[in-house]
Amino acid sequence: MPRTPSPDTSAKRRQRVQSAETGMTILKALARLGGAASLTAIAAEADESAAKVHRYLSSLASEGLVAQHPATQHYHLGPEAVRIGLAALRQCDPVRMGESALLRLRESLQVTCFIAVLGNRGPTVMRMEEPSLPVTVNIRPGSVLPLLWSASGQAFVAFADDAELRAQAEAEYAGATAEQRSVMGGPDPVGTLCQQVRTQGCAIVRDTLLAGISAIAAPVRDARGHVVAVLTALGASNGFDTRPGGKVCPALMHEAGLISAAMGYVPPAAG
Amino acid sequence: MPRTPSPDTSAKRRQRVQSAETGMTILKALARLGGAASLTAIAAEADESAAKVHRYLSSLASEGLVAQHPATQHYHLGPEAVRIGLAALRQCDPVRMGESALLRLRESLQVTCFIAVLGNRGPTVMRMEEPSLPVTVNIRPGSVLPLLWSASGQAFVAFADDAELRAQAEAEYAGATAEQRSVMGGPDPVGTLCQQVRTQGCAIVRDTLLAGISAIAAPVRDARGHVVAVLTALGASNGFDTRPGGKVCPALMHEAGLISAAMGYVPPAAG
Repeated sequence: MPRTPSPDTSAKRRQRVQSAETGMTILKALARLGGAASLTAIAAEADESAAKVHRYLSSLASEGLVAQHPATQHYHLGPEAVRIGLAALRQCDPVRMGESALLRLRESLQVTCFIAVLGNRGPTVMRMEEPSLPVTVNIRPGSVLPLLWSASGQAFVAFADDAELRAQAEAEYAGATAEQRSVMGGPDPVGTLCQQVRTQGCAIVRDTLLAGISAIAAPVRDARGHVVAVLTALGASNGFDTRPGGKVCPALMHEAGLISAAMGYVPPAAG
Repeated sequence: MPRTPSPDTSAKRRQRVQSAETGMTILKALARLGGAASLTAIAAEADESAAKVHRYLSSLASEGLVAQHPATQHYHLGPEAVRIGLAALRQCDPVRMGESALLRLRESLQVTCFIAVLGNRGPTVMRMEEPSLPVTVNIRPGSVLPLLWSASGQAFVAFADDAELRAQAEAEYAGATAEQRSVMGGPDPVGTLCQQVRTQGCAIVRDTLLAGISAIAAPVRDARGHVVAVLTALGASNGFDTRPGGKVCPALMHEAGLISAAMGYVPPAAG
């Protein structure tokens, strides 16, 4: 088949890149199938011909990314896939991965925002961005926040689903002032709060931690679904939109979702 | 550059496969560098030109296998690498991966051999192969073995380096008969045994669990270095070579090493 020289060169270049991409597509297809499958199943999942997939699997096998079971001839992810995955997990840092989300939130909403992880003393602010005219708050990187009176803490307690953390929250409630307790209620105040936060998809507080300050926090999950950080935005209560469908909540939840996706999190299919 | 048609076609085919392999090589190089590195560092590690590596990294990025940090421009393993790694870890089953090792040991040494994992009751035989003229033992898949009087148990205690397992071994020693205890000695019998087993690289028992039966066991490690199984060979004491440098020990340790490598284990560099 004769071709003009120029498109041929361009096609060749694209193909070389494309072959690497096809290899990755097949690797991802095998992972989606649980890490072990027949050639037929992988070809169907990758939407490619069995002959083509077979050739790529040979390449992947020669690099240790896949291996073939001697008895069943099924393919499974190989030792190099494990090593790559462990390296990827080790460098999965929600704080680093949240940096651009903080910059986007600061720019688009002109709010103070931070990312917090659960340290040994509680929710701990790791990285913070403030707009050019920030609201004055005594929260800084390194600040440890309460579990029940901060949006960040509430997000950890509600979404982490961790019995020990829940017990710490109950202890915090038991030691709270009557005024603090007044914002919560019912026979199971911590349980009710958690339920409400989960229904909203984010934690929303007004004036509970700092007078005149409102905050919203959404969970960041890793590839295993564990809550590894929370993304929080805050502002002066008189100008900060705390409505669940308002300006801040959906944007914050969207950015938290982007960080989670970068960590490898796949949300469960909507039921 | 004119080429003859036939080698060109052949070269093209090879190149398509080769491009997929190059993509994997670069992905593995990034993993070896800890999962995050500069273009220069990745090119050096993969022993390819920066221009070529850059093109491949773009392909890997388009498939989500790598991502680029917006500030530093460094590359890091992306969310798809995490997902592939988790899938690979999930299907990493030492019992399945040990099947061919059992067949090879049975054929080459004509010994009974099995792979055991640490179940909730102790070392548990999962899969077993016997030669055509097997020695009669009352060990079957599902059998739970003692920690101190079986080679499998000793291998778990010595190599797993787990405080709880060590405590269970101490309890087993405390409850042992005088005859059982007589094969161990010194002020710290369990510690001395562990040290000896680690020095040998495998556990060797003669007649301690079953009269007239000797056994040798070597550890199988996963990608994190954890002992996830042991590979054990056994035979009648009068015909079974229990010398550390004999027929069985090196072969068994070699096969256990092959299973570990398939699990993603990388042995520490010799010091």
